[in-house]
Amino acid sequence: MADCIFCKIIDGEIPSIKVYEDEHVYAFMDIMPLSKGHTLLIPKQHREFVYDLTEQEAGTLFAAAPKIASALKETFQPVGMNLLNNNGAKAGQSVFHFHLHFIPRYDETDGFGAKWITKEKQYSSEKIQELAEQVKQTLATQS
Amino acid sequence: MADCIFCKIIDGEIPSIKVYEDEHVYAFMDIMPLSKGHTLLIPKQHREFVYDLTEQEAGTLFAAAPKIASALKETFQPVGMNLLNNNGAKAGQSVFHFHLHFIPRYDETDGFGAKWITKEKQYSSEKIQELAEQVKQTLATQS
Repeated sequence: MADCIFCKIIDGEIPSIKVYEDEHVYAFMDIMPLSKGHTLLIPKQHREFVYDLTEQEAGTLFAAAPKIASALKETFQPVGMNLLNNNGAKAGQSVFHFHLHFIPRYDETDGFGAKWITKEKQYSSEKIQELAEQVKQTLATQS
Repeated sequence: MADCIFCKIIDGEIPSIKVYEDEHVYAFMDIMPLSKGHTLLIPKQHREFVYDLTEQEAGTLFAAAPKIASALKETFQPVGMNLLNNNGAKAGQSVFHFHLHFIPRYDETDGFGAKWITKEKQYSSEKIQELAEQVKQTLATQS
């Protein structure tokens, strides 16, 4: 897409620090890394959100994830790794071309961490069951 | 695997609130949700980490992601969504069967949020280029 910085990276119009590429995907280092080895994996085809990927595109993209994650693990020996995909500005997305972050984790100096406050008091089993029924109805409509 | 809670869920030994299932994957509601609609997607085959998935397993798993994310979006109308996979206790993993979180986002009451502190002062372009070369060498050894 004309004004997409990641499309320009794929086309070579904007330089990037590539770590992996195949016919369908491109992986490169985040130049604003949250930790050592922070890498982005993107589809070559412009898609904004996870919602916009076809099944095949999603499958092809994530098929590359184990080898990239394994290479980061072997190279940098982190104590853990987060894979994160943000959809929407309010979920932290800043470039509107689908991307999956690989964030190796080391210690408390990591630039990434998760706020994690469970809401089980707010959501009973019965309530969650109701929500699941709604999702299943939507899924049934989609297919 | 015998002592894995998610394997027991797949086998029906432990109840779960299912939203989707196919030959290879199982999706169910998190009973300790971070927000309304918080869902987990797992492979039926026991794998601990992203590193342990084959290319095919990873592809098959994530092929289901767009439809699940789209159904959650259509059903609950969140303002955004985070997809998150934690590998290792220090990265937030508590069940050691690979799982991908779908966390719809609504507002400041969401139980999920990201600490996001970029380290570009610590990592020059030259330094990142060096790190990328190391990763590429590891990838070349893998294949």
